[in-house]
Amino acid sequence: MAETLIQIGIVGCADIARKVSRAINLAPNAAICAVSSRSHEKAAAFAAANGLPLSAKVYGSYEAILEDPEVDAVYMPLPTSLHLKWAVLAAQNKKHLLLEKPVALDVAQFDHILEACESSGVQFMDNTMWVHNPRTAAMANFLNDAQRFGNLKSVRTCFTSAADSDYLSRNIRVKPDLDALGALGDHGWYCIRAILLAANYELPKTAVASYEPVLNKDGVILECGASLYWEDGKVATFHCSFLANLTMDITAIGTRGTLHVHDFIIPYHEKEASFLAGTETNFDDLVTGWAKQPIKHTINTDLPQEALLVREFARLVAEIKFKNSKPEKKWPTISRKTQLVLDAVKASIQRGFEPVQIQE
Amino acid sequence: MAETLIQIGIVGCADIARKVSRAINLAPNAAICAVSSRSHEKAAAFAAANGLPLSAKVYGSYEAILEDPEVDAVYMPLPTSLHLKWAVLAAQNKKHLLLEKPVALDVAQFDHILEACESSGVQFMDNTMWVHNPRTAAMANFLNDAQRFGNLKSVRTCFTSAADSDYLSRNIRVKPDLDALGALGDHGWYCIRAILLAANYELPKTAVASYEPVLNKDGVILECGASLYWEDGKVATFHCSFLANLTMDITAIGTRGTLHVHDFIIPYHEKEASFLAGTETNFDDLVTGWAKQPIKHTINTDLPQEALLVREFARLVAEIKFKNSKPEKKWPTISRKTQLVLDAVKASIQRGFEPVQIQE
Repeated sequence: MAETLIQIGIVGCADIARKVSRAINLAPNAAICAVSSRSHEKAAAFAAANGLPLSAKVYGSYEAILEDPEVDAVYMPLPTSLHLKWAVLAAQNKKHLLLEKPVALDVAQFDHILEACESSGVQFMDNTMWVHNPRTAAMANFLNDAQRFGNLKSVRTCFTSAADSDYLSRNIRVKPDLDALGALGDHGWYCIRAILLAANYELPKTAVASYEPVLNKDGVILECGASLYWEDGKVATFHCSFLANLTMDITAIGTRGTLHVHDFIIPYHEKEASFLAGTETNFDDLVTGWAKQPIKHTINTDLPQEALLVREFARLVAEIKFKNSKPEKKWPTISRKTQLVLDAVKASIQRGFEPVQIQE
Repeated sequence: MAETLIQIGIVGCADIARKVSRAINLAPNAAICAVSSRSHEKAAAFAAANGLPLSAKVYGSYEAILEDPEVDAVYMPLPTSLHLKWAVLAAQNKKHLLLEKPVALDVAQFDHILEACESSGVQFMDNTMWVHNPRTAAMANFLNDAQRFGNLKSVRTCFTSAADSDYLSRNIRVKPDLDALGALGDHGWYCIRAILLAANYELPKTAVASYEPVLNKDGVILECGASLYWEDGKVATFHCSFLANLTMDITAIGTRGTLHVHDFIIPYHEKEASFLAGTETNFDDLVTGWAKQPIKHTINTDLPQEALLVREFARLVAEIKFKNSKPEKKWPTISRKTQLVLDAVKASIQRGFEPVQIQE
């Protein structure tokens, strides 16, 4: 059995790697075989603190783990500005790639990463966990149901969190040389992904940033928003911020239905998640109440969403490793669309809130 | 007792007057003493169908009811384009005025109405019912609580409903000579009012309409949206439409708290209404769930919100009638701010989505 497990190496010991290590341990088809940091001590401490198998190798450099022939795939939670270098090297070394989001500083960088993955025939997936929750599949079924939801007209998302002063002065996500996209790259990524999900991954035509984004002294975005427009009149808006209380909403409005969710990225509870779905909701005759109101749908899961992500990633890697399958293009395609929209929003901010066309 | 009831005349038998007639009957301090329409037959049929007191007089003209000395106050659900003429005449005839929203086609018209009310010393109130639900007071308490909510950062509202083809071809709300403001005047009014409530009625500085509003062949707005900006960086967005499933959401995000509601205009149930409130909501250590999540607050009411509105209106009228009090300025002030924002959004649409300054 063990030889059929996909062997994953962790490239970088960021805080989020704690959660993903647990997810790899939980996934039935993957195992952690190695961990690396820029210092051997840090990697060893991470391995000890996070229940890594005693057999997991500890590396004091990223190069070393990428040269380990036992490593089938890597999980890479490095700062965004380092993705281009290390993700390309990982792919060149034939390592399947689970990459943290945002996947790159811009789509041009991301295309270099994708080219390296394609050349080597390795699977690419970004580490957007919530799309792997079975709730998301249930939401997508509803949103794509002509009877229950109809055609999407408007979708509104937000993701805000209250960073403390330590985070705002020291976290990599506010450093221009590390995660230069700030709240747009971190929180906006999820908002944009949710909007794309609601639009069945049809790219919007135009992005227009909201006025008055908040930037720090180094120009990193701490808060921003945008509206997105499609050819057929669909419209989306999102708002993302490091400067407000924790909130993560989707309101999707169709011609026949409505979807509401308040915890779309991290469900309130690990093993169950809900959303409200309404179809042809309406008032009673005298408009003193609703004759038909939205209904709560709750979906249970044995494995947390991040373990389901790892399981799906490892399944695709196993298809390639053991059955000579081709990499699944769905995941890099969705990542690239998310980055394209993100780039357009950033460009709109830089151009004084002018509309920016989005082209595939 | 009966002589202390405020005697209300209904000026116009619009569909919404059915609900308001019931509300006047339910309010302990008001009674319907007369009803009018442009035809005596229509007024008589309305009186018979809606449980009006047998003593209620039936008038076949608006002038006649406004000249009836028994009438203390009028409820006026006329199309918006008729407000200026009839609301001014009502005020000139010393009738206290409960006026349907939107209060006027623009703030200049509304100022004429308010001047007439002030000259005559009559109370003005618009018929925005949901602000009189005790839930709204509870929401306002939360939103203005520095500990539980902090400072407002962003508020997002929507109100959409699915008009059928008959409505879209015949209803007064899509007719340029009747309700020329269309979905902005009808649905947008509520969205803007909710945004103002969240901002504790501080007017935004700037309005910017969203691209691609939907207008009918006569130029009446069927769908639109806007972003609103304050000096201190607060931002709001709303979306209103006649062309999508029934939805009415508020998501208000503060530095310390968050409020969510899905039925803010018409609560799902007449006698109880809920909202979700979160304070310093946060994740567990490994970010696999929420350590603290929003809590549902449910508020009960004996009287439906529209009867509470009538009770408050009649209370203010009684203060003036029996105690020589001055009219309460809070209600016309809020109405005027709502209209000012509405005007700015309309102007932004007309000017190609340029930012429009809002000045009191």
